[in-house]
Amino acid sequence: MPKRVQVIGAHSADFVWRAGGAVAKAVALGGVAEVIALSYGERGESGELWKQEGQTLENVKRLRHAEASAAAGHLGASFRCLDFGDYPLQIDGERLLAIADVIREFAPDVLITHTSVDPFNPDHPVAFGAVDRARSLAAGAGVPSAFGTIKPPQLFLFEPHQPELCAFTPTVHVDITSVWDQKVAAMAEMQAQQYLQTYYAQRGEQRGNHARRASGRSEVRYGESFMRVLPQVVEEL
Amino acid sequence: MPKRVQVIGAHSADFVWRAGGAVAKAVALGGVAEVIALSYGERGESGELWKQEGQTLENVKRLRHAEASAAAGHLGASFRCLDFGDYPLQIDGERLLAIADVIREFAPDVLITHTSVDPFNPDHPVAFGAVDRARSLAAGAGVPSAFGTIKPPQLFLFEPHQPELCAFTPTVHVDITSVWDQKVAAMAEMQAQQYLQTYYAQRGEQRGNHARRASGRSEVRYGESFMRVLPQVVEEL
Amino acid sequence: MPKRVQVIGAHSADFVWRAGGAVAKAVALGGVAEVIALSYGERGESGELWKQEGQTLENVKRLRHAEASAAAGHLGASFRCLDFGDYPLQIDGERLLAIADVIREFAPDVLITHTSVDPFNPDHPVAFGAVDRARSLAAGAGVPSAFGTIKPPQLFLFEPHQPELCAFTPTVHVDITSVWDQKVAAMAEMQAQQYLQTYYAQRGEQRGNHARRASGRSEVRYGESFMRVLPQVVEEL
Amino acid sequence: MPKRVQVIGAHSADFVWRAGGAVAKAVALGGVAEVIALSYGERGESGELWKQEGQTLENVKRLRHAEASAAAGHLGASFRCLDFGDYPLQIDGERLLAIADVIREFAPDVLITHTSVDPFNPDHPVAFGAVDRARSLAAGAGVPSAFGTIKPPQLFLFEPHQPELCAFTPTVHVDITSVWDQKVAAMAEMQAQQYLQTYYAQRGEQRGNHARRASGRSEVRYGESFMRVLPQVVEEL
Amino acid sequence: MPKRVQVIGAHSADFVWRAGGAVAKAVALGGVAEVIALSYGERGESGELWKQEGQTLENVKRLRHAEASAAAGHLGASFRCLDFGDYPLQIDGERLLAIADVIREFAPDVLITHTSVDPFNPDHPVAFGAVDRARSLAAGAGVPSAFGTIKPPQLFLFEPHQPELCAFTPTVHVDITSVWDQKVAAMAEMQAQQYLQTYYAQRGEQRGNHARRASGRSEVRYGESFMRVLPQVVEEL
Amino acid sequence: MPKRVQVIGAHSADFVWRAGGAVAKAVALGGVAEVIALSYGERGESGELWKQEGQTLENVKRLRHAEASAAAGHLGASFRCLDFGDYPLQIDGERLLAIADVIREFAPDVLITHTSVDPFNPDHPVAFGAVDRARSLAAGAGVPSAFGTIKPPQLFLFEPHQPELCAFTPTVHVDITSVWDQKVAAMAEMQAQQYLQTYYAQRGEQRGNHARRASGRSEVRYGESFMRVLPQVVEEL
Repeated sequence: MPKRVQVIGAHSADFVWRAGGAVAKAVALGGVAEVIALSYGERGESGELWKQEGQTLENVKRLRHAEASAAAGHLGASFRCLDFGDYPLQIDGERLLAIADVIREFAPDVLITHTSVDPFNPDHPVAFGAVDRARSLAAGAGVPSAFGTIKPPQLFLFEPHQPELCAFTPTVHVDITSVWDQKVAAMAEMQAQQYLQTYYAQRGEQRGNHARRASGRSEVRYGESFMRVLPQVVEEL
Repeated sequence: MPKRVQVIGAHSADFVWRAGGAVAKAVALGGVAEVIALSYGERGESGELWKQEGQTLENVKRLRHAEASAAAGHLGASFRCLDFGDYPLQIDGERLLAIADVIREFAPDVLITHTSVDPFNPDHPVAFGAVDRARSLAAGAGVPSAFGTIKPPQLFLFEPHQPELCAFTPTVHVDITSVWDQKVAAMAEMQAQQYLQTYYAQRGEQRGNHARRASGRSEVRYGESFMRVLPQVVEEL
Repeated sequence: MPKRVQVIGAHSADFVWRAGGAVAKAVALGGVAEVIALSYGERGESGELWKQEGQTLENVKRLRHAEASAAAGHLGASFRCLDFGDYPLQIDGERLLAIADVIREFAPDVLITHTSVDPFNPDHPVAFGAVDRARSLAAGAGVPSAFGTIKPPQLFLFEPHQPELCAFTPTVHVDITSVWDQKVAAMAEMQAQQYLQTYYAQRGEQRGNHARRASGRSEVRYGESFMRVLPQVVEEL
Repeated sequence: MPKRVQVIGAHSADFVWRAGGAVAKAVALGGVAEVIALSYGERGESGELWKQEGQTLENVKRLRHAEASAAAGHLGASFRCLDFGDYPLQIDGERLLAIADVIREFAPDVLITHTSVDPFNPDHPVAFGAVDRARSLAAGAGVPSAFGTIKPPQLFLFEPHQPELCAFTPTVHVDITSVWDQKVAAMAEMQAQQYLQTYYAQRGEQRGNHARRASGRSEVRYGESFMRVLPQVVEEL
Repeated sequence: MPKRVQVIGAHSADFVWRAGGAVAKAVALGGVAEVIALSYGERGESGELWKQEGQTLENVKRLRHAEASAAAGHLGASFRCLDFGDYPLQIDGERLLAIADVIREFAPDVLITHTSVDPFNPDHPVAFGAVDRARSLAAGAGVPSAFGTIKPPQLFLFEPHQPELCAFTPTVHVDITSVWDQKVAAMAEMQAQQYLQTYYAQRGEQRGNHARRASGRSEVRYGESFMRVLPQVVEEL
Repeated sequence: MPKRVQVIGAHSADFVWRAGGAVAKAVALGGVAEVIALSYGERGESGELWKQEGQTLENVKRLRHAEASAAAGHLGASFRCLDFGDYPLQIDGERLLAIADVIREFAPDVLITHTSVDPFNPDHPVAFGAVDRARSLAAGAGVPSAFGTIKPPQLFLFEPHQPELCAFTPTVHVDITSVWDQKVAAMAEMQAQQYLQTYYAQRGEQRGNHARRASGRSEVRYGESFMRVLPQVVEEL
């Protein structure tokens, strides 16, 4: 049965590099996908754009919105930004509840966000903390409560830039061979971060190698790796 | 597609308490299951039997073989014992290769064994070390080699008696509701370890509770929990 | 010498399931026990109550207060709620100091609270963080200071619902056999969470089994397990 | 090439015990060192001073400022206090940005602060969290951004009072033999914390022993130990 | 009630530095203590002795036996060496059973040995592995068995030379103030390892400081620290 | 001052992919490098060769020797194989001492080997265990002993194929930009494992990216990553 997949990233481009394939695959299999950005990454992660003289925050946000929307389009997903600001991303009680509402509204089967540690990024761990807690608020305690609750989504962490330094252990490889072209197209939209396109194209190949090694399935060419946070419930091993 | 499931335990009764439900479920879904015991647990784990005067090792082994075969029968699995001796279980180079051969011959999709730590059992960690290494020998390096290799099986660790002291984190709950009666019948065969029957019946209920909580699927009544060692390769999250 | 035991939980019922036996035992041995709830768990953890039409927050809090007080009474402890609200529990600087004052006033020998991780509850880790920091503020740095300090209490974490997912390793089992009936009576007061009564009755038996196994003391029938956070100072091993 | 070393501690005396030698050594080798205190430790860590009748917060801060300045002087470093208050140290968004500015202004090669855990101090982990995040904000993402950035400093954690309880593993020992007298002189200024002078003199000897053992260099008499947080980039192993 | 304390070390002097106080304290409180050395440390740990020309293995062993016996005498314990050889210490099946027999014969309440990791010693982790497994064999599975079993001893790891590198976290501090002179006298017997006497005298003071800090008991002057491996069973927290 | 670098791998090709750049760099800086293989990887890791009909173990070993020697030549290192056999690699007491002798003879400043965990290779962890223990035997306890000892080498673990699954955290990146062509040439010799050439060329680029990010040094193009096992002793941070 088709899945509802929701990706919540700290900055508007995170979903492309780290979960673009999984999003496209879910949609290809009949699912629905929504991408939420907590900020545009306008101050800290818009590299090339800030080389242009006279650049402004509002213009960067506008360009980043266009890029992210186009990228999500290649993957078959919708895109929305909560525009909380970046570097630093700050989450107070009200924003926490807003994220919980976003999760409650979409009611995802699969929820994807950052790792809890990232020594090279000040906003990623903040995003993890907020999304993880908001998930718990949206799903409730498994009993009737004073607020609406949803079926508990499965939580996955997507691959950070330097996995070994971010407490990231891949526990699930998704075979994204059949949607690889879509991920490449989505990455190509991120003109402000061109240096990452080669990097994540290589990672796709390498994760494909790892997936072949773990499964013995030689037809896997490209993979994307995730870390499952909660136990999986299955019909058989 | 139906699975081939192989359980390798240190002693002849381990599979019943820890993986009986998963075995029965796999068979119920059309799979084939084989249980391998490295020893009968004849010296250290045959409690009630050693209360009988004049008891002998050979008689204990005979009785344990009968019990384990009957229990495996309730689950739809075959049973075989390598009879390496227990307390202590010792594995040398030759026995390591014998275990690799056993794995190679059955060519399991799913391989299940003990955790790597168990402060209350001297043989369980030894079994883990041997099975884990034998698995790696049987599957090879993913390239042609001087010996026959099989498709790499998925490795799972079953639940030890005191999980938190054994580095056991459940990452997969199997819904065993539909085969619960078979597990109860298999446990009832273990007359030498009666005190464990209540204990693992309660665990089945509790793991069912955990599975409901993680998935929101209220129809799960009984569960069995496992720890996946290697990454899973999937078509979608 | 009799101990002063203080339990600080996120919600008004937490102490019953997780530390009811240890509280009753301390009182039975001549000690004094106080239970502090940071909230009533009125929004997220009052299951059955929210099935009643026209239910209100105030009524839920009133009923939860009555239940918790009655349960504490069975155990010989007093009960007080700081009423900070739940789902989400939020702690600012003022509330942190209020918790430190509560600890300073009671001056516990033994302080008990939640684990630092709980993927199935958004409030438990918040409670841990606040109580742990408040403890450190109440005890000071072991030197004269600008504020009153108490002898450093021993800090214990009580058992969460799914221990392996909460970084909980039991390091102390308390033999609660002699006060088991009191714990059962206290649990029976929690009419809004009936499904937990069977669950924690089974845990009591299982922890008794673990305690027997670790100690060889066959007379232990029921146990409750805790994780000690700070080193213990003893006269001999 | 000479280094720029910046130490940021929660309280005004932390740098002396934990990094005094490394600071003096860097200066002796031609470097520049700056010590930043987030507070004076006026309420919680000024032991002897609070034994004096009629003592006031302002007087304690004045004395602590004098002590820390004198100690820094012995080491060849400057000293500055942000005076955020202690027990508890609280960091909001504005203070976080202030710390980032302090780092950005000094542009350190080497940045030194507390460990992320300290069960015997409520302010040290808060200081770590703030400094670590401020570092990441000051260095940016390695691309052009809306704010000024500096070359990423190397981050080190200095030795806490009880290392094994603070997740501290020494990964670097600095040979401070040639500046030992300066560290002793700096420690002697801390009249409010006399009991620590013997303690850290012994630690200096012991870390010297550990450094000899790790390196085989018998000329090391005194050492100071640190934990490196980020990978080191070198020309050869 | 008085305790039976058994220390099993890789080399004949290990017990003095690491558990001498705990041994003397147990004896002072009416207990009985036995020290077992797996080897004399004759090849690798007899420093000064090998500076003497014409030194032989047999002579080193004779001198080490005399030293260890004298040291044990100061503490009130007996001493015995299994003489398995050192650098490397090797344990086969027969030696494993011999250690299990040594434990079974003494039937300790408290069993003390090395940590599982020690990057500066090739024999300590081997000793841990053997003693831990032998303990499990001696205590059995808590049910009748083909061999004699004893009540499960409590297992403690004593402090290694460089604790943070050996996965050692102190969980128990023993107050050894009243037997400090005995430990000093025992250490003085170790003439072949004089450099360690100052080191462990300082550690005694420091662990006293840590014990005061954890307990608030100002009368503790000297401490010895241990890591408890198995859960403790108590009457109250 | 120039370094002596020794790499000890389980199979004859391991050094090329994982440490080829660090070896070439050390030699380029005036050092001396020796590569030791514990086996040829003849049975398990010689992929393409076993596709040839009539292939024999001896022929594979001969070809692997030629390849490894040629590769070492490109890097400026000598190559030697202990020929202990692979899949499984087995280490007994005699072989352990042989490895200690190899280390003692070369007296490396820098010693490099496998990680302690590798779920996709049965021989790598065995090699780690043997080399780590042999290192400790060769260096002794830092005091005179019955056998010759060397200055303790610094121990590094090289990058495994799937780092996150092998407990590998990069703590040192070596800038291998200036010797990149040599590493490429060495990799090209490994005709039996062609698929790895692309993989490790990409890794070289990615580790260069990581090194730039950690250091801010934009001139680093290619990197190789290692995990340091023992503390480093330095003149300044």
